[in-house]
Amino acid sequence: MALSRFEYVKHFEHEERLLKNCWIVVRVDGKSFHRFCQAHKFNKPNDIDALQLMNMAGMTVMQDFNEIVLAYGQSDEYSFVFRRDASVYQRRRDKLVSYVASLFTSAYMFHWTRIFQHRSLAMCYPPAFDARTVLYPTDKNLRDYLSWRQADAHVNNLYNTTFWNLVASGLSNSDAENKLKGTLAKDKNEILFNQFHINYNNEPLMFRKGTILMLKTVMVGENKQKFIVPIFEDLIGDDFWLRHPEILGKKTKLEAIYDLGENVNQPIIRYQIEVHEKRKKGRNKSVDE
Amino acid sequence: MALSRFEYVKHFEHEERLLKNCWIVVRVDGKSFHRFCQAHKFNKPNDIDALQLMNMAGMTVMQDFNEIVLAYGQSDEYSFVFRRDASVYQRRRDKLVSYVASLFTSAYMFHWTRIFQHRSLAMCYPPAFDARTVLYPTDKNLRDYLSWRQADAHVNNLYNTTFWNLVASGLSNSDAENKLKGTLAKDKNEILFNQFHINYNNEPLMFRKGTILMLKTVMVGENKQKFIVPIFEDLIGDDFWLRHPEILGKKTKLEAIYDLGENVNQPIIRYQIEVHEKRKKGRNKSVDE
Amino acid sequence: MALSRFEYVKHFEHEERLLKNCWIVVRVDGKSFHRFCQAHKFNKPNDIDALQLMNMAGMTVMQDFNEIVLAYGQSDEYSFVFRRDASVYQRRRDKLVSYVASLFTSAYMFHWTRIFQHRSLAMCYPPAFDARTVLYPTDKNLRDYLSWRQADAHVNNLYNTTFWNLVASGLSNSDAENKLKGTLAKDKNEILFNQFHINYNNEPLMFRKGTILMLKTVMVGENKQKFIVPIFEDLIGDDFWLRHPEILGKKTKLEAIYDLGENVNQPIIRYQIEVHEKRKKGRNKSVDE
Amino acid sequence: MALSRFEYVKHFEHEERLLKNCWIVVRVDGKSFHRFCQAHKFNKPNDIDALQLMNMAGMTVMQDFNEIVLAYGQSDEYSFVFRRDASVYQRRRDKLVSYVASLFTSAYMFHWTRIFQHRSLAMCYPPAFDARTVLYPTDKNLRDYLSWRQADAHVNNLYNTTFWNLVASGLSNSDAENKLKGTLAKDKNEILFNQFHINYNNEPLMFRKGTILMLKTVMVGENKQKFIVPIFEDLIGDDFWLRHPEILGKKTKLEAIYDLGENVNQPIIRYQIEVHEKRKKGRNKSVDE
Repeated sequence: MALSRFEYVKHFEHEERLLKNCWIVVRVDGKSFHRFCQAHKFNKPNDIDALQLMNMAGMTVMQDFNEIVLAYGQSDEYSFVFRRDASVYQRRRDKLVSYVASLFTSAYMFHWTRIFQHRSLAMCYPPAFDARTVLYPTDKNLRDYLSWRQADAHVNNLYNTTFWNLVASGLSNSDAENKLKGTLAKDKNEILFNQFHINYNNEPLMFRKGTILMLKTVMVGENKQKFIVPIFEDLIGDDFWLRHPEILGKKTKLEAIYDLGENVNQPIIRYQIEVHEKRKKGRNKSVDE
Repeated sequence: MALSRFEYVKHFEHEERLLKNCWIVVRVDGKSFHRFCQAHKFNKPNDIDALQLMNMAGMTVMQDFNEIVLAYGQSDEYSFVFRRDASVYQRRRDKLVSYVASLFTSAYMFHWTRIFQHRSLAMCYPPAFDARTVLYPTDKNLRDYLSWRQADAHVNNLYNTTFWNLVASGLSNSDAENKLKGTLAKDKNEILFNQFHINYNNEPLMFRKGTILMLKTVMVGENKQKFIVPIFEDLIGDDFWLRHPEILGKKTKLEAIYDLGENVNQPIIRYQIEVHEKRKKGRNKSVDE
Repeated sequence: MALSRFEYVKHFEHEERLLKNCWIVVRVDGKSFHRFCQAHKFNKPNDIDALQLMNMAGMTVMQDFNEIVLAYGQSDEYSFVFRRDASVYQRRRDKLVSYVASLFTSAYMFHWTRIFQHRSLAMCYPPAFDARTVLYPTDKNLRDYLSWRQADAHVNNLYNTTFWNLVASGLSNSDAENKLKGTLAKDKNEILFNQFHINYNNEPLMFRKGTILMLKTVMVGENKQKFIVPIFEDLIGDDFWLRHPEILGKKTKLEAIYDLGENVNQPIIRYQIEVHEKRKKGRNKSVDE
Repeated sequence: MALSRFEYVKHFEHEERLLKNCWIVVRVDGKSFHRFCQAHKFNKPNDIDALQLMNMAGMTVMQDFNEIVLAYGQSDEYSFVFRRDASVYQRRRDKLVSYVASLFTSAYMFHWTRIFQHRSLAMCYPPAFDARTVLYPTDKNLRDYLSWRQADAHVNNLYNTTFWNLVASGLSNSDAENKLKGTLAKDKNEILFNQFHINYNNEPLMFRKGTILMLKTVMVGENKQKFIVPIFEDLIGDDFWLRHPEILGKKTKLEAIYDLGENVNQPIIRYQIEVHEKRKKGRNKSVDE
């Protein structure tokens, strides 16, 4: 069985390596998630559990790559930012983009039951995500990329919040659509306030801003632990970057203790504490190892 | 929230389109599957259920793309062959390779319980696959690619079968390795025959040749149905290509009825029959729709 | 002078290798040749010397690469077809496309005096060409590429011949343009015939069909020589490919003697004979070596 | 002549666009220049005229692209640095790299006579250059690239200066090679000083540092003119970048008058003055327009 006779076909592989010293962004997007959301009756405009499941999947990807400095999720998408000097897979494009998509998908399914069991929601069919890789040469370009995604989250969420409230109030989908056609942000804010007594700025930050994930040192009981923490903040202004200078620095500084505050109850934190506790107790058959 | 101010970052995307009129092969590979197999105590050298689960995942990918003419799986890898004129995702490289990896992963997890429930095997942690895309300009190059993978399956399976029989007989892993160092195929055949009374040629075809998947018209009861069928054949010689001329033709010919024979009991066939029966009975809440 | 401190920058180079087993076409195009033609008062619609100079440049490129099976020139462009298995520069894209453009330019200037001295035409400023690389996976794709260029030559030449005859007859450029707007090939043929007594089919083949260059064995006096020969034929129909089967064959067959006929007077043949004669006489300081 | 039937082949073109907001470096390299130098009996280790001809070609390329902020030449190579935001050819790789190579070649030949006529040196055969494109995401990467090339110039020139002095003193090439094997910079400096009374630091800057070209505002008589000026400086240290801040700025500042000093006698300056004078006198049939 002359293996060697056929091996020449290996040389048809085109291994693109991503340009060095650029930020690598891999963005995962739900494929046909409109249908997936309907099939599983996700709440409109935001299903908190579905978003938390996305965060669980985002956390899993970050745990797997120590070269991701930040991840950002909103709606059915998640962006992973690899350091300029990341050497993962020798920066081979195909491998990186496919593996991130696969692991994200895998974690999404793996944690489904944990997140949805309180609603007894079974998965009807296998979901899928596609992914793309984009390079950004400068820190400004990277910040603008993340600002773009967060501005997009805001624009969509304001629209969707207004739209679904209109529909809940009795309008047909097309009537709601027509009513919103051509409206500005302040118009939507007014509809929400006047008609539904909703102050949009009081809507949950996670819905309005999406979820930022970063590796931080937190206190778990009396121990310092490095956890992937969810951050719900505006990242368009400079403040965020001043508070988290390690993102643009080559090496992350983890000495400072990050105060989880009420985010200690976020599912990804509860999960990491649980895994941590199991390991501590020497239970080696942990859920996740 | 000036979305438009940031939108310029979109133009950093580099959308590679795969060269037209070439065969596109997307090969999915298990990531760190050595560890995954050990964690789940898969049988050595072949775990029939684990292979059937790979086939379930391969089937799912094929069902999703009508431009895949053939898939080939062995060990922890699966190759999907898209027609020369495939226009999927406008042949965009990132999207294609990531989506195939994601859907394969998703289906692997989705069907896990179906395949492993008889062993009460729970998944310990989320598995992942990476993928790569390779272009082949000629039919000969494509055949040689597939021959390469099947020859590889044979070489590895003969080695592994001998190795694990030696280990089962009491040798340490390193003693077994040393014993096989430098041996030829016929030497391994002789060890198997003389020492373990195993005629390698009687080993299951699926282990020796891997699994070929194709879309064929089969009889289900009295109805013609288009099913993804598993084929366990040598694809290196010309016979296979004469028996399945539609692979290299532009349009697949599905008129001829393909005789499933004993493969009617293969899990992917049983699954497709099940889905078919449910649909037929008008049960719209089918497992998979 | 720590050379090594800076050498890391080498790894930013992205060496794309062209997909194996595809035909490689490098097409060189005159940059701003409209202006160049005007500055040098080239004849309209065809300047026979300018075309012969292009052929001299095409010949020079072919002499330099033994993996070019055919070149095709028309107007201010030249296409070079490299064999499927060409290994030139290890198929590195940048090097190939830039070197072909450079050598073509260089030869164009080097042979300028030879071609234009009978008109005492001096070069006013340095001309330039750009180039592109295109891959074709199948023989049919390659033939269609060449047919595309030859059909383009025909369409343009018929238009230009009619246009410039109209202008010569007294019409302004814009009047001539308007008169030809929306006309079909047969309309232009009729204008030429009725108004100018020109049977388009009697126009020189080189103008109507462009120039094909191939390496052929010819008789020079009593000796067989391998020469780059100009061929003025239709290459869209099958006849051309039957007469020159070596193009699509892997190895060129050069045994058969190619009859130059009246093309023995073409400048590229006269030049090759001259070089050959000089070498034969042992004049080592030949013009071109 | 159904042009349209063949036009589909256009879509096989793969138009790579260079990543935005990166510095683009196109480096042109002499092809087989060892042979070319020998054929034309260029002086060893440096032929001042041959280097000036390279500078003439470099100047021509810079004049053609207003997005080149700096060019650097040494030996038989020239690097052209395009601004981060250059939009030339829409950053299409093939076109850019081939056109730069072609124009450089063309200018090299065009100015040959001007440079070499005082030696009555005729060109024996057409020279050629290849080129490559490299992207640099940060200013530091760009500076390191240029430092790499200048350090390379130094290392090679010190070696060659010592080598050819040894050969001139009677050693065979291989004896000179052996003598230099394993020597450090200071060893070569000592050989030059002790054996040939040459203080390497007194060698011409152009030989030791190569030629930097930039667009500067200079005084020609009483008029301000924008000229491409040759600069012979160390560009590895910070001083150069402080003196020429416009390189890393987006827009070049040309207000300050650059003092040409003795470089007013450099051929590229004399040439630009000559062209300028001709234009001024209204001689429209200038050599170069």
